[in-house]
Amino acid sequence: MATTLGHHQYGKAEIRLVRITRDGDTHHLKDLAVSVVLSGDMAEAHYSGSNANVLPTDTLKNTVYAFAQEHGVPSAEGFGILLARHFVTSRAPVHHARVRIEEYAWDRIATPGRGAHSFVRSGREVRTARVAFDGRKWEVLSGLRDLTVLNSTDSEFRGYAKDRYTTLEETDDRVLATSVTAVWRHADGDGRPEPDWDLSYERARGHLLGAFAGTYSRSLQQTLYRMGASVIDNLDGIDEIRLSLPNRHHVPVDLEPFGIENDTAEGAVYVAVDRPYGLIEATVLRAGAEPRIPVDPTR
Amino acid sequence: MATTLGHHQYGKAEIRLVRITRDGDTHHLKDLAVSVVLSGDMAEAHYSGSNANVLPTDTLKNTVYAFAQEHGVPSAEGFGILLARHFVTSRAPVHHARVRIEEYAWDRIATPGRGAHSFVRSGREVRTARVAFDGRKWEVLSGLRDLTVLNSTDSEFRGYAKDRYTTLEETDDRVLATSVTAVWRHADGDGRPEPDWDLSYERARGHLLGAFAGTYSRSLQQTLYRMGASVIDNLDGIDEIRLSLPNRHHVPVDLEPFGIENDTAEGAVYVAVDRPYGLIEATVLRAGAEPRIPVDPTR
Amino acid sequence: MATTLGHHQYGKAEIRLVRITRDGDTHHLKDLAVSVVLSGDMAEAHYSGSNANVLPTDTLKNTVYAFAQEHGVPSAEGFGILLARHFVTSRAPVHHARVRIEEYAWDRIATPGRGAHSFVRSGREVRTARVAFDGRKWEVLSGLRDLTVLNSTDSEFRGYAKDRYTTLEETDDRVLATSVTAVWRHADGDGRPEPDWDLSYERARGHLLGAFAGTYSRSLQQTLYRMGASVIDNLDGIDEIRLSLPNRHHVPVDLEPFGIENDTAEGAVYVAVDRPYGLIEATVLRAGAEPRIPVDPTR
Amino acid sequence: MATTLGHHQYGKAEIRLVRITRDGDTHHLKDLAVSVVLSGDMAEAHYSGSNANVLPTDTLKNTVYAFAQEHGVPSAEGFGILLARHFVTSRAPVHHARVRIEEYAWDRIATPGRGAHSFVRSGREVRTARVAFDGRKWEVLSGLRDLTVLNSTDSEFRGYAKDRYTTLEETDDRVLATSVTAVWRHADGDGRPEPDWDLSYERARGHLLGAFAGTYSRSLQQTLYRMGASVIDNLDGIDEIRLSLPNRHHVPVDLEPFGIENDTAEGAVYVAVDRPYGLIEATVLRAGAEPRIPVDPTR
Repeated sequence: MATTLGHHQYGKAEIRLVRITRDGDTHHLKDLAVSVVLSGDMAEAHYSGSNANVLPTDTLKNTVYAFAQEHGVPSAEGFGILLARHFVTSRAPVHHARVRIEEYAWDRIATPGRGAHSFVRSGREVRTARVAFDGRKWEVLSGLRDLTVLNSTDSEFRGYAKDRYTTLEETDDRVLATSVTAVWRHADGDGRPEPDWDLSYERARGHLLGAFAGTYSRSLQQTLYRMGASVIDNLDGIDEIRLSLPNRHHVPVDLEPFGIENDTAEGAVYVAVDRPYGLIEATVLRAGAEPRIPVDPTR
Repeated sequence: MATTLGHHQYGKAEIRLVRITRDGDTHHLKDLAVSVVLSGDMAEAHYSGSNANVLPTDTLKNTVYAFAQEHGVPSAEGFGILLARHFVTSRAPVHHARVRIEEYAWDRIATPGRGAHSFVRSGREVRTARVAFDGRKWEVLSGLRDLTVLNSTDSEFRGYAKDRYTTLEETDDRVLATSVTAVWRHADGDGRPEPDWDLSYERARGHLLGAFAGTYSRSLQQTLYRMGASVIDNLDGIDEIRLSLPNRHHVPVDLEPFGIENDTAEGAVYVAVDRPYGLIEATVLRAGAEPRIPVDPTR
Repeated sequence: MATTLGHHQYGKAEIRLVRITRDGDTHHLKDLAVSVVLSGDMAEAHYSGSNANVLPTDTLKNTVYAFAQEHGVPSAEGFGILLARHFVTSRAPVHHARVRIEEYAWDRIATPGRGAHSFVRSGREVRTARVAFDGRKWEVLSGLRDLTVLNSTDSEFRGYAKDRYTTLEETDDRVLATSVTAVWRHADGDGRPEPDWDLSYERARGHLLGAFAGTYSRSLQQTLYRMGASVIDNLDGIDEIRLSLPNRHHVPVDLEPFGIENDTAEGAVYVAVDRPYGLIEATVLRAGAEPRIPVDPTR
Repeated sequence: MATTLGHHQYGKAEIRLVRITRDGDTHHLKDLAVSVVLSGDMAEAHYSGSNANVLPTDTLKNTVYAFAQEHGVPSAEGFGILLARHFVTSRAPVHHARVRIEEYAWDRIATPGRGAHSFVRSGREVRTARVAFDGRKWEVLSGLRDLTVLNSTDSEFRGYAKDRYTTLEETDDRVLATSVTAVWRHADGDGRPEPDWDLSYERARGHLLGAFAGTYSRSLQQTLYRMGASVIDNLDGIDEIRLSLPNRHHVPVDLEPFGIENDTAEGAVYVAVDRPYGLIEATVLRAGAEPRIPVDPTR
């Protein structure tokens, strides 16, 4: 045979699920997009088209909905653990399951009276969870994307390398803005109680925001490192975090041709540039921890 | 001549502008996308290519940035008024100017210490403003889009018309969700002080949310009307509002094949459907007011 | 009553439909997104929540699919006519129906052998149709969007108005690029055979492309007019066309700091700018025709 | 130190570049989005904020534009090789460079007369290239995304595994549609002339299309394998290919409630479903070749 099959996997992506729980007149809402990826003894589907070991992706979808009603959605991570365990333990040809979840936040609409069943989508960042299980070992990655932040001062960019193609001027006071994508890895749970995933998430988010706001920045790289270190220093159960920070450039407008001074003590006007953008990515580890969050090859 | 020119206009679209104001250590941030549309005595540009009456769109962009620094951005509506007046009064061939603004909200990141220059994009709905001026008359439309709301009960849909193609079953308890687009028109300002645009916006938004949450809904049409009426009833200066409400269908999953009861007293699981979606649109008017918000022909 | 209902309508949007026709081993494919909008005697749904005159939007969806199978999809316009007639003539409370259709083009994949059932999405522009019927009068608007075109020469921009905020330099050779949105109106069909909609579309598209490519352009306004006039001059049944042309700016890069000459006789390098963009919009009419294509108020 | 830095990289993303070459009256056009990622001795930027080893991302952007004018854009891959070599060889702290390129295709607009400077964006799939260089070894990955294809017959799905949550019915004639993302790896160039990248691309694309159209499919997995094998079997210089195939479900509409038979010998009507979708991913290797295309961890 001139060709052979390498790594293969399959699944169902972007299963949109809303779970509403009624606690008397007070309702609760979980809003998720769930993706399931399975791999194992499935080579024959590729070689001969035999589907004997392939559970239809339609069944994966049904399972997600059924589990949501039977077991509830305790948290993104907790729901992912339920699903990953099910697929690996219930089907022999499935050797490995990965569940990815995006969660969209909603706030309550304050209403007079006793009922509490009205919500407005908060629009804050998207929470993410990635759970992997191979029958023996678990890996739980929590994270977020689209957390857009901006410091209007306390950021400089100086002392950088220069070559023939460098025209950028140094600055000791610039706007620093980024849209945070972060993925953090929870330490193995051996003997340790499972964390309160929602609390852990809110704390990690808080440390990311706090470190971004509190760092006097000499570069976005430095800010990134402080953000990652802040999460690891403050959250025992997190050993590794990977951050991807696009530099959302805000360029002061040149108003000199119009006899107008920009960037005065009172303020300034900036162009918010869409493309291109700098992109800073790094992993921060607890000293001694092994790096296991994969680097995204598409960036 | 076999052909002739009809309605024509030109402008610059999506000028991204961030204005930062420094009040000592406390900074303030306005984040806008501004579009300017001019019309008037410009037919010759089309017929012969003479640009004598055409101010370049690049100049429109420069003007927006220059005005933001010179005059500040008091509010989306206030900034639009400044710009529209400028273009109509400073250039004879410009007979009519329209300025459209989208504003993106940011929250402060709470930080210890005295400084306040860190922000996180709130992700809540986008605020909109459309200001038109023809040299004599003003029209100011405020609004919003992407305000996504959901009631998990107190919504039914019954007693509707049926024909050969009707399969939908009646329900007395469904999820009602929509993503509000609203545009409201301020009464003419003759003799009346200009409103506090930001306060007016927050109040209109609050009434939209309150009426959505507080209405026991027999149809999305009814909810729409109550939302619009609530704004007009409570805000003196608003005479007309147009609402566009996609029905973001949440369909209970059929779990019967798996022996699982969905939609119990404790809760239920729903598919959040992307497409297709119902789309309900209507104008609500103060009694006696003239309808002037145009109907969007593309929907 | 302090408030009253103005213009109102409802419908189902973005019904995704693929129709495959089998002609022996040769298959044909139509790929559409259909939206239906109805209006008429529906005020009560807003005032009291009575749905007696409201056909569910779910029924509109069912009808679209059923008609596609029963009657086929002769063309986007033809299908829209079938649907609009049905809704207005079959339901007394429906006084007016509008059907909007987007059509996505596919090419055949050339295959050896007799079968012809493999397709690749062409990715060319999206074809659009808007059909309106009020029980007596028809209006058929055909069109397209996302037809992106570029001339690498034969475009200048000079002799324009200048003011305090003008910094743009005149040029006698620039790149001219735009992404065409066009809507054209077919003359009333009284006594005239219904056109071959597909042929009419291809001819209109061809004239738009030909006029864009063939015009030595002094401004995008001039190019717009020539494009519109070319359609009307060459297609008897079209009385009016509205064009919306964003100016997709291509700015020569300043390479002087690196001692490199840009824009030589051999070629040049440009930044393709996303935002902001100029936006030129106009209607071209057959002399004597009445303008009936509405101006989009959201631009 | 409680934390340490793991893998880190930085760069400039989505540099939009159009290069026009003039060959007398005949012009040629290349339309690219280029991203550059560098890594090496940059830890200090993270720890202390020292930027001494960091070339600004603004300089990366300038370099891309300067190279495009100085050296031209022979092909996506060839341009990436030029850039990657430059960054690694010209800056000691840069140990590794990766260049990712997206290329957008344009067709000529046929025009009478001698000139040939008018283009229409073809909208076909996006061509991709990823070039990596560490000073010694090269890796060149070519590919494409958004190649959307459909077979209207010759696809079945039967004999699959079933469990408690399986409701899908077997079918021996279904629509099979997908939107191909493919990345293929070129064998090391030692002693071998560099391929004609454009020709290689067109041939790979042709084999992907041909194998998709020509395979009687028992599963999308089988089709995927045939597509990959066809590329490797027919193109000497390609040793590995990774395919990611979303199953774009086309579900026959149930028209029975309306007394209409769907799916007759003459044809059928389908719902084109957006979400969720099956997602089949696999690598196909030349026998004996080492797998080196990384698996995307975000899917």
